[in-house]
Amino acid sequence: MSQNQLDQKSQAWSALFSEPMSELVQRYTSSVSFDQRLWRADIQGSLAHAAMLAAQGIISRDDLAAIERGMAQIAREIESGGFEWKLALEDVHLNIEARLTQLAGDAGKRLHTGRSRNDQVATDVRLWLRGEIDAIAALLAQLQRALVDIADQHAETVMPGFTHLQVAQPVSFGHHMLAYVEMFARDAQRLADVRRRVNQLPLGAAALAGTSYPLDREMVARALEMVDEDGCAAICQNSLDAVSDRDFAIEFTAAASLCMVHVSRLSEELILWMSQNFGFIQLADRFTTGSSIMPQKKNPDVPELARGKTGRVVGHLVGLLTLMKGQPLAYNKDNQEDKEPLFDTVDTLKDTLRIFAEMVGGITVQPGAMERAALKGYATATDLADYLVKKGLPFRDAHETVAHAVKTATALQVDLAQLPLVELKRFNPAIGQDVYEVLSLRGSLNARRLLGGTAPDQVRAQVARHRQRLG
Amino acid sequence: MSQNQLDQKSQAWSALFSEPMSELVQRYTSSVSFDQRLWRADIQGSLAHAAMLAAQGIISRDDLAAIERGMAQIAREIESGGFEWKLALEDVHLNIEARLTQLAGDAGKRLHTGRSRNDQVATDVRLWLRGEIDAIAALLAQLQRALVDIADQHAETVMPGFTHLQVAQPVSFGHHMLAYVEMFARDAQRLADVRRRVNQLPLGAAALAGTSYPLDREMVARALEMVDEDGCAAICQNSLDAVSDRDFAIEFTAAASLCMVHVSRLSEELILWMSQNFGFIQLADRFTTGSSIMPQKKNPDVPELARGKTGRVVGHLVGLLTLMKGQPLAYNKDNQEDKEPLFDTVDTLKDTLRIFAEMVGGITVQPGAMERAALKGYATATDLADYLVKKGLPFRDAHETVAHAVKTATALQVDLAQLPLVELKRFNPAIGQDVYEVLSLRGSLNARRLLGGTAPDQVRAQVARHRQRLG
Amino acid sequence: MSQNQLDQKSQAWSALFSEPMSELVQRYTSSVSFDQRLWRADIQGSLAHAAMLAAQGIISRDDLAAIERGMAQIAREIESGGFEWKLALEDVHLNIEARLTQLAGDAGKRLHTGRSRNDQVATDVRLWLRGEIDAIAALLAQLQRALVDIADQHAETVMPGFTHLQVAQPVSFGHHMLAYVEMFARDAQRLADVRRRVNQLPLGAAALAGTSYPLDREMVARALEMVDEDGCAAICQNSLDAVSDRDFAIEFTAAASLCMVHVSRLSEELILWMSQNFGFIQLADRFTTGSSIMPQKKNPDVPELARGKTGRVVGHLVGLLTLMKGQPLAYNKDNQEDKEPLFDTVDTLKDTLRIFAEMVGGITVQPGAMERAALKGYATATDLADYLVKKGLPFRDAHETVAHAVKTATALQVDLAQLPLVELKRFNPAIGQDVYEVLSLRGSLNARRLLGGTAPDQVRAQVARHRQRLG
Amino acid sequence: MSQNQLDQKSQAWSALFSEPMSELVQRYTSSVSFDQRLWRADIQGSLAHAAMLAAQGIISRDDLAAIERGMAQIAREIESGGFEWKLALEDVHLNIEARLTQLAGDAGKRLHTGRSRNDQVATDVRLWLRGEIDAIAALLAQLQRALVDIADQHAETVMPGFTHLQVAQPVSFGHHMLAYVEMFARDAQRLADVRRRVNQLPLGAAALAGTSYPLDREMVARALEMVDEDGCAAICQNSLDAVSDRDFAIEFTAAASLCMVHVSRLSEELILWMSQNFGFIQLADRFTTGSSIMPQKKNPDVPELARGKTGRVVGHLVGLLTLMKGQPLAYNKDNQEDKEPLFDTVDTLKDTLRIFAEMVGGITVQPGAMERAALKGYATATDLADYLVKKGLPFRDAHETVAHAVKTATALQVDLAQLPLVELKRFNPAIGQDVYEVLSLRGSLNARRLLGGTAPDQVRAQVARHRQRLG
Repeated sequence: MSQNQLDQKSQAWSALFSEPMSELVQRYTSSVSFDQRLWRADIQGSLAHAAMLAAQGIISRDDLAAIERGMAQIAREIESGGFEWKLALEDVHLNIEARLTQLAGDAGKRLHTGRSRNDQVATDVRLWLRGEIDAIAALLAQLQRALVDIADQHAETVMPGFTHLQVAQPVSFGHHMLAYVEMFARDAQRLADVRRRVNQLPLGAAALAGTSYPLDREMVARALEMVDEDGCAAICQNSLDAVSDRDFAIEFTAAASLCMVHVSRLSEELILWMSQNFGFIQLADRFTTGSSIMPQKKNPDVPELARGKTGRVVGHLVGLLTLMKGQPLAYNKDNQEDKEPLFDTVDTLKDTLRIFAEMVGGITVQPGAMERAALKGYATATDLADYLVKKGLPFRDAHETVAHAVKTATALQVDLAQLPLVELKRFNPAIGQDVYEVLSLRGSLNARRLLGGTAPDQVRAQVARHRQRLG
Repeated sequence: MSQNQLDQKSQAWSALFSEPMSELVQRYTSSVSFDQRLWRADIQGSLAHAAMLAAQGIISRDDLAAIERGMAQIAREIESGGFEWKLALEDVHLNIEARLTQLAGDAGKRLHTGRSRNDQVATDVRLWLRGEIDAIAALLAQLQRALVDIADQHAETVMPGFTHLQVAQPVSFGHHMLAYVEMFARDAQRLADVRRRVNQLPLGAAALAGTSYPLDREMVARALEMVDEDGCAAICQNSLDAVSDRDFAIEFTAAASLCMVHVSRLSEELILWMSQNFGFIQLADRFTTGSSIMPQKKNPDVPELARGKTGRVVGHLVGLLTLMKGQPLAYNKDNQEDKEPLFDTVDTLKDTLRIFAEMVGGITVQPGAMERAALKGYATATDLADYLVKKGLPFRDAHETVAHAVKTATALQVDLAQLPLVELKRFNPAIGQDVYEVLSLRGSLNARRLLGGTAPDQVRAQVARHRQRLG
Repeated sequence: MSQNQLDQKSQAWSALFSEPMSELVQRYTSSVSFDQRLWRADIQGSLAHAAMLAAQGIISRDDLAAIERGMAQIAREIESGGFEWKLALEDVHLNIEARLTQLAGDAGKRLHTGRSRNDQVATDVRLWLRGEIDAIAALLAQLQRALVDIADQHAETVMPGFTHLQVAQPVSFGHHMLAYVEMFARDAQRLADVRRRVNQLPLGAAALAGTSYPLDREMVARALEMVDEDGCAAICQNSLDAVSDRDFAIEFTAAASLCMVHVSRLSEELILWMSQNFGFIQLADRFTTGSSIMPQKKNPDVPELARGKTGRVVGHLVGLLTLMKGQPLAYNKDNQEDKEPLFDTVDTLKDTLRIFAEMVGGITVQPGAMERAALKGYATATDLADYLVKKGLPFRDAHETVAHAVKTATALQVDLAQLPLVELKRFNPAIGQDVYEVLSLRGSLNARRLLGGTAPDQVRAQVARHRQRLG
Repeated sequence: MSQNQLDQKSQAWSALFSEPMSELVQRYTSSVSFDQRLWRADIQGSLAHAAMLAAQGIISRDDLAAIERGMAQIAREIESGGFEWKLALEDVHLNIEARLTQLAGDAGKRLHTGRSRNDQVATDVRLWLRGEIDAIAALLAQLQRALVDIADQHAETVMPGFTHLQVAQPVSFGHHMLAYVEMFARDAQRLADVRRRVNQLPLGAAALAGTSYPLDREMVARALEMVDEDGCAAICQNSLDAVSDRDFAIEFTAAASLCMVHVSRLSEELILWMSQNFGFIQLADRFTTGSSIMPQKKNPDVPELARGKTGRVVGHLVGLLTLMKGQPLAYNKDNQEDKEPLFDTVDTLKDTLRIFAEMVGGITVQPGAMERAALKGYATATDLADYLVKKGLPFRDAHETVAHAVKTATALQVDLAQLPLVELKRFNPAIGQDVYEVLSLRGSLNARRLLGGTAPDQVRAQVARHRQRLG
């Protein structure tokens, strides 16, 4: 499409059209306001395409040089804010191509040979998303490192482990933090899997059927570093699929949703722990906000907002799945709606991970409050039952015996370890002085030293493993 | 909060805070970039609040006058684009209040008496949404009128009615259009129901517990035209609920989702009918786009994009439901995330309804293509079965007999009406010359004249009913 | 369709078909395993249809009598468990019709005159759902009454009101409970709005285009009590819309989702309050479960499960919206997928509301723990600021002064009310002995007596209003 | 927990509980009605656990033998339908354990040593899902093979390729089918990635903190074939994460959703192609259904239902994400709600893939109808533009010239190839006789022979590649 025709876009597509596009339609269908963020990928893809066209003799070396000069100029203009984006030119692709044609004349007009916007946009989004995945991977590593650091410092800090938000058994706060490291590590793994499917070349599919020009798709793929684990060029093998597939965006958003769900769980806990009734941690003041009305307030706005943003990303996933449902092949305009949810998902995830990585470093732990809380809910009752089993009781009787002991302690408003030995012996005469070691928080903690358990030794071993893994 | 303190927001909330808010946090938690669109509602609510404070003797008449002058000035500044929105002032409320305090001094500082941002933002969003619902109602009426007009013109136009996208029975194209009028009429009804629940006053709930100032909430409600069907002031009756409820936003988005689903169904049909294999309609050129590659293309971008945008709105609904799930009372920062999905839902729905109302007027119907298509699929086979029943056959035999006739006609590649009488009599001797009336498309159409049926008379009666209803 | 043909269903539809339906397809497309729950509505609708056919002279009085006898027999068989449901007969409609034809012979064969399964199933689902909405409304009223009772008992009980899960201001526990009454009251209102749109008659639409028989749709509507507020028969006015509309199911599921979101919020709070770190309430033992391992555990399984089931219902809503997106008119088989999500939504909502109505009555409140918690977070700081404003300070200075006071109290680990007067005067000399009234929880509570505020008087007034409303 | 205690479950958990569980609660919280399908995995996991306990000397060899005999007996009972599932025993785990204790006495009571239901259920679901993923992988391969076969038969069959459902360029029907092979191949890849994360061992995490027994988790992992690509035992490394993680279920459901979206796209096309206005294919009669009313109908119920079921699976995904959002660690009862959506997702996907694999083999292609359709929309207009470019025209002029030619041909109601040379020359004198080769469908097709293009040679090359890949 030449410059001339491009200028007319807002008037009429071609002689076929008897009237210009309605203003309303132009605004409704234009994407340049949001897809301009793809400009770098668009230029990168175009340069690889042009170099290949020249190598194949489809355009001349001079044309290639003119295109390269023009693109360099355009990149400078965009970076400096001097590029004039035009709504009438619909999208990032036509805006750049129109400017290139101004700068490079006929050479610019030849760039689009053997290409269509359908395969061009698919290539651009993939290149851009690949870069964002790498950025997210780095942020995930940073967040994991921050969590590992706090786990290392608090391998010995005892807190109540909860199930059903009821005190269950004592756990190490470091161990608790490492649970999130596992989650974010899985998120990183999933994104690495997504990246393999993102990093494939659609260019060459043209509008939908391929093209009659003798393109060298492998050369383009290699130039864009689209290769698989084995070093082979990674190329979309079916032109219809190449232009209509948005799996990669949906799969990415699904992985991002899971990651945000993990963030929401950590947020929930930070908010709980900050609450006066827990008082387990404080967030650094710079991560909290006050109230314009209530002078005593320090609110954990960041984790609350992050918890809320989970809905945002899950919503985008649903939007993309709904978008794709029931679409016939090949490209339909519905697919233009893939971009805003994808872009916003990337932005939300990156902002959230970045702020969490910093915020985790600003957590002040209150070991005293944690320990007091662990003493409240008979957290070592299971240890007492295990103790009785080791003394020979069937587990059923041990369980029942401990239930009676807990009932008594509750009535007396004391912990099990505060019951005198004579009182404990009433429940079972086999109980001896050594029971108090078992009933202590630390005794309980240290006993769980198997792989994956909460004993401080295990926590430190896991910290070491994660540090090696995270480099 | 005084001007002075407002200026410090980016540094520290109060003496309680030992360090200023992190830059990252400021950007993460700020909402002014999107909530500034609430400015008109914010001023409207503040003026009603101020007038009541003066009436109750809580502030002076002079203060009220100063506030009114200041707000008038601020409105002019915002309308003219001269208002300077500051990220550091977090949201629309603090931006306006800070400016008011510059303009009105102490009077500005007194405006916030007995109010908190929690009940203020809830009031603003409700006022704003109420106005948007009214705008959407008008657009829905406009779209219905456009559909009724085309239905009126095409009461007699025969097209194949489909079930399972298989030709089923002949229907009037006007009748088909009126099916969408029913859908959009229900959408309008639903929005009217939502409006009743939106149009209720949270102001007076303060931060969460109410306030010790003797506010006259009824006066504020009436000033803001928040009244129910019976003319009573409509006031949120529980302060905790008032600041944390976002039902109205979710319910609105659910209604909007259903409306977009209806748009998606109409879009699907327009796209099908535009396809060369149907060829039932053409869209005016100004509502179509061409291809930069394929010179023959006229694409129905608008209905495709609208179909895609259905996912967007459904995604927002999911986002809001996820946001609210499991939130304890009262206000949590998560709720700030209600705005962008709500705003985008309103924008998307309005843009889509507006463009559809116009586009429907630009549809050119091809009655010939519709009629030819209706002749393809043995659309009057049911009529033949009914004819045989009236001649005394049990329906089972009639159904089976017609199946045989269809099989024969299929083999001969003709329609039932093209079989000669002698041939038809072979299937059942009771068939007479009058069968050809029954086998005609128009005969079939006219026979379905019961309430809600497809006969042109019925269509015209429905057109008249809708016109009266829509005014 | 005669008995004979019905028997053949699993072999072949008609002479048109050259081979019987595949076994796999039969199982994939059959719905009788789940839609048999519609049997009562199916019979009810058929009887109304038959009575009308007789009144219009389309079938004889004898036929009507035979149909009525047959249906009475079938109802008895189904109720007693003696009815044999056949997968090969696909759905509830054909199962009942086939049995009717066995029992009533030719009269049974005539029942389907002027009707199709498309309008029949739409009618059945609407009748069934109408009944379920009424049952849900009763459960919602029961739950509200239970909440009102507990609010009445605890109008004077002080707890910390939270925003951001940080202690904000003292509130009445009764007031807190009434916030949920407001939510469930809105849910009931929404369901009443849905009911109006559910309670409309599709019968008469036949397959998609209406029918040539002179049906009296108004008579059928009245017989089925499908009338609007003004007593007019409520009839679907467009046959294409009537058979393809599933708005009513989607709108119901959206209302159910919001109701479950409210349940999830209450659940979250019950779980928090049960946690040892809050200790605000206990649930009756019969609503908790223990652990097979940890002898001390009493877990709030019911609210946890209810919170989880929120996702289930939201998922069904998304399923239904996705189902409908992009469907062309008129009936498509996709719509068969509307039933299971709808049925499960109804079951989940009813079970949950029923168990919550009972469980709320089994809550034991710990006023001491609530009051101690309210003393932790400087809940009356706002009251102190208000006090200073009344002494003449600008709010900004008052807010800042209180921040300093809170900082000091925090350092001393005491509440504001525990600071001696001489200490308080250091922050501002205007502070007098009367400040201690303001700093007390009860003083703060009683001061918020405006409409919707947390003062015990207000709570009792709201209790009275709700009791009147709920009958 | 001993048999005795198990029997009491419905009465009271332990001495701690003052009243038995409410009937309502028992039904609300019981899962045995749906989780009994996990029985085989439950026994498999228990046997591996028991063997390890014996190897570690925690239980005796005799106990192990008794457990193995008991489990073999239980497996026989369940397989034969003779096992009595009890609601009062809550879930599959307690039902099997209770029976084992009846059969094996004290040995049965010792099985649960060092284990809790939290890590047990996580293990069971993972084992079960791993098997289902393998079954789905086989079905996906079967479906791909069926599609490859039809592609092979129709490499040369020309159909119109669509974009925006407008005729775009001619494509090979085989090529079109292979687009779906690409999609299902990606789905299979994704499931393989999920499988790696599913196939990891939670056992050893106990309730949440690990256990004090010296378990050999690696031995259990190896016994259950939970190993990674490098042959290392795959073990969940953090006990808190192990019992609360449901990522694997969510990730699986996301992959299943994408797969169903692909099915929905293929379904949409099959339905379109079956419609009389396309007439591109017929489905074998055994995959279609008729109408009880309209004797001429053959409906594509299977693809319609499959398209509808897409919503079902997407809904389950949303349900699971909502479920997990904001859950604090570690296990909460909410997680019980993960099973039904997961189970139904597996069932739906398997049933759908199985029926599609068979149905694809029953497609009859109508090459004549496809070719006629390809002649309708000026599908070779791009080829004409490319022809002119090769004759030296700038693409812009070529595009515009062809638009004029299309306009003329439209007016004359002929295809471009039907315009006489003299007429074509009027648009550009460079056009020669060789243009007719370019304007032919086959000429266009054959020209697109680059990698991934639609030329029959390419299609056959891809068929060969897929066959090798699929074995």
